Amino acid sequence: MHTLNVALGHRSYPIHIGAGLLGRSDLLLPHIHGRQVLVVSNETVAPLYLDALIGALSGYHVATCILPDGESFKDLQHLDRIFTCLLEQRFNRDCTLIALGGGVVGDMTGFAAAAYQRGVDFIQVPTTLLAQVDSSVGGKTGVNHALGKNMIGVFKQPNVVLIDTDVLTTLPARELKAGLAEVIKYGLIRDLPFLAWLEQNIPGLLAGDASLLAEAIRQSCENKAAVVAADELEKSDLRALLNLGHTFGHAIETGMGYGAWLHGEAVATGMLMAADLSMRLGWLSADDVLRVRTLLVRAGLPVDPPQMAVEEFLQHMSVDKKVKEGRLRLVLLQALGHAVVSEAPPELLCATLSAGSALGVLK
Amino acid sequence: MHTLNVALGHRSYPIHIGAGLLGRSDLLLPHIHGRQVLVVSNETVAPLYLDALIGALSGYHVATCILPDGESFKDLQHLDRIFTCLLEQRFNRDCTLIALGGGVVGDMTGFAAAAYQRGVDFIQVPTTLLAQVDSSVGGKTGVNHALGKNMIGVFKQPNVVLIDTDVLTTLPARELKAGLAEVIKYGLIRDLPFLAWLEQNIPGLLAGDASLLAEAIRQSCENKAAVVAADELEKSDLRALLNLGHTFGHAIETGMGYGAWLHGEAVATGMLMAADLSMRLGWLSADDVLRVRTLLVRAGLPVDPPQMAVEEFLQHMSVDKKVKEGRLRLVLLQALGHAVVSEAPPELLCATLSAGSALGVLK
Repeated sequence: MHTLNVALGHRSYPIHIGAGLLGRSDLLLPHIHGRQVLVVSNETVAPLYLDALIGALSGYHVATCILPDGESFKDLQHLDRIFTCLLEQRFNRDCTLIALGGGVVGDMTGFAAAAYQRGVDFIQVPTTLLAQVDSSVGGKTGVNHALGKNMIGVFKQPNVVLIDTDVLTTLPARELKAGLAEVIKYGLIRDLPFLAWLEQNIPGLLAGDASLLAEAIRQSCENKAAVVAADELEKSDLRALLNLGHTFGHAIETGMGYGAWLHGEAVATGMLMAADLSMRLGWLSADDVLRVRTLLVRAGLPVDPPQMAVEEFLQHMSVDKKVKEGRLRLVLLQALGHAVVSEAPPELLCATLSAGSALGVLK
Repeated sequence: MHTLNVALGHRSYPIHIGAGLLGRSDLLLPHIHGRQVLVVSNETVAPLYLDALIGALSGYHVATCILPDGESFKDLQHLDRIFTCLLEQRFNRDCTLIALGGGVVGDMTGFAAAAYQRGVDFIQVPTTLLAQVDSSVGGKTGVNHALGKNMIGVFKQPNVVLIDTDVLTTLPARELKAGLAEVIKYGLIRDLPFLAWLEQNIPGLLAGDASLLAEAIRQSCENKAAVVAADELEKSDLRALLNLGHTFGHAIETGMGYGAWLHGEAVATGMLMAADLSMRLGWLSADDVLRVRTLLVRAGLPVDPPQMAVEEFLQHMSVDKKVKEGRLRLVLLQALGHAVVSEAPPELLCATLSAGSALGVLK
């Protein structure tokens, strides 16, 4: 088992990574301070792993809230279901919420924990690769709005993140690939050696090699923890760098309807769009962009944006959280392994948005 | 104009109290950092004061969100309307929300500001006495749930509180009286000289004497600011003392249906119930309780609890935020001017809950 620390003063917390952690009460119980525990999960994950988790909580008053599975249910209406569960069980301010699931469950449970009685404890037990390497760490919580993804939420750090690598054996291949998009992201924005490691090991990762996956998760969480520790609340642009590909990706997700594209898939295509735009700015070479494209394709990820009008792209992108004084700002690559937040000349942005399957090819 | 300070380190903010402050751009603009401003108000207040406020915001991109008036609309569904307004206008993270209204508008606007894009600025312009002396100060925000009042929310401090005493001239008498309940509360929990001052000046306050009202608001806000500065997040029991009468009161509000009793009315009756229970514990004399009752009656406030079964009272009270390890804790009076948080023997609590109109009378 690896243990990392997210260094945030009195809100610091450990991330445990290893096989068979789900039922480890020795890792869970030190972070539960009352007797009441609500496990929030979804209809896909609960039948597989709920019993093991509850087994580690004997002696506690444990209730469960099982949500439907999917990004399209990540809204205020389904958030309210968690509050109803808590209130029906008469849960008090000293209760603890545990998120058992992917990014949707984690984001919603964290938001519910932040807002229930103005704040109760919560624990992340992520069960998708994407949640393990990204969304379960760092305290971003929230729900979507019909007009914009992740527009409603707060920062709320968990007490502990328990990453059981065994659960990846039941993860559908499509979800595993989607998670790899966020893994690759760390290489692109700040860790060139990790990018090279991924290029070498992508076949093993796709094949589900447990020790390779554990290593990829560890390196990803180390990168994430370092960024979050330096800029917890995204006050500078540092934390925003974690959003490489996300402004394009959110536009795809919102435009195509939540759930049509997996978040990681939209981010993969979005990262290639960011690389394409970085090339048009003269920062990346065509070879660099090809290198990004090749890795994403080898990871089984989509690299062609959907058929969406430039205007629609721009409309969805205009509500991005990085917009400042009305001006769109994007995470771009000054070089592979070195991301920055920058505005981009509109004509270059439009060229990227209209490039379609010719991303990375200068006309 | 009086100016008080809520001392919270880098989250400190001023409270300005005086006549004609609503249109004072010199007081508003220093606290608005972007160009986009959303004014949230309700159908009753907007026709009276929206124009004056907007007049002080010339040169800004100002949008409005007008909610229906009343506690029964303080829910997630109507909160979502604020988010829709913000997103339809493409408002970014550097926007500012202004709450123009009573406690419902203030609580919802503050929560929306805390959660929109994980946090934007907001300003309180309270237009009821209750909001001016209590809910606009201190950063408690949120909405109700069908199963419990104020169960969903977060702490979010405003940038400034602008209390225009002129708006009280249009406040219905019933609302003015309801506000006096929270004013009297400060005397009961921590300020015996203020209690005596109120006993002397209640006729003038009810008659709408502007200088007396301004003085009552100033003293109330000073008390509130002192408590909030010492215990912003209700980590100790200190801030909880501001909830005198509120556990009983919330049970009345939830049990009777949101809006049937005004919050201040429910708190008034709740404070007399707390005084009654304090007497049964041997802390207050019958004369003390009579003194509380007399002042509330002179302020035109209800002092008889509604016909509600003891079981129903207990059920609604059991979701109170002060419950710890399953045990109900109440704000009670060790003496007039000295509140404490304490458990109470169930038989004494039941005696209070079943006393009906005989509150304060030992059988």
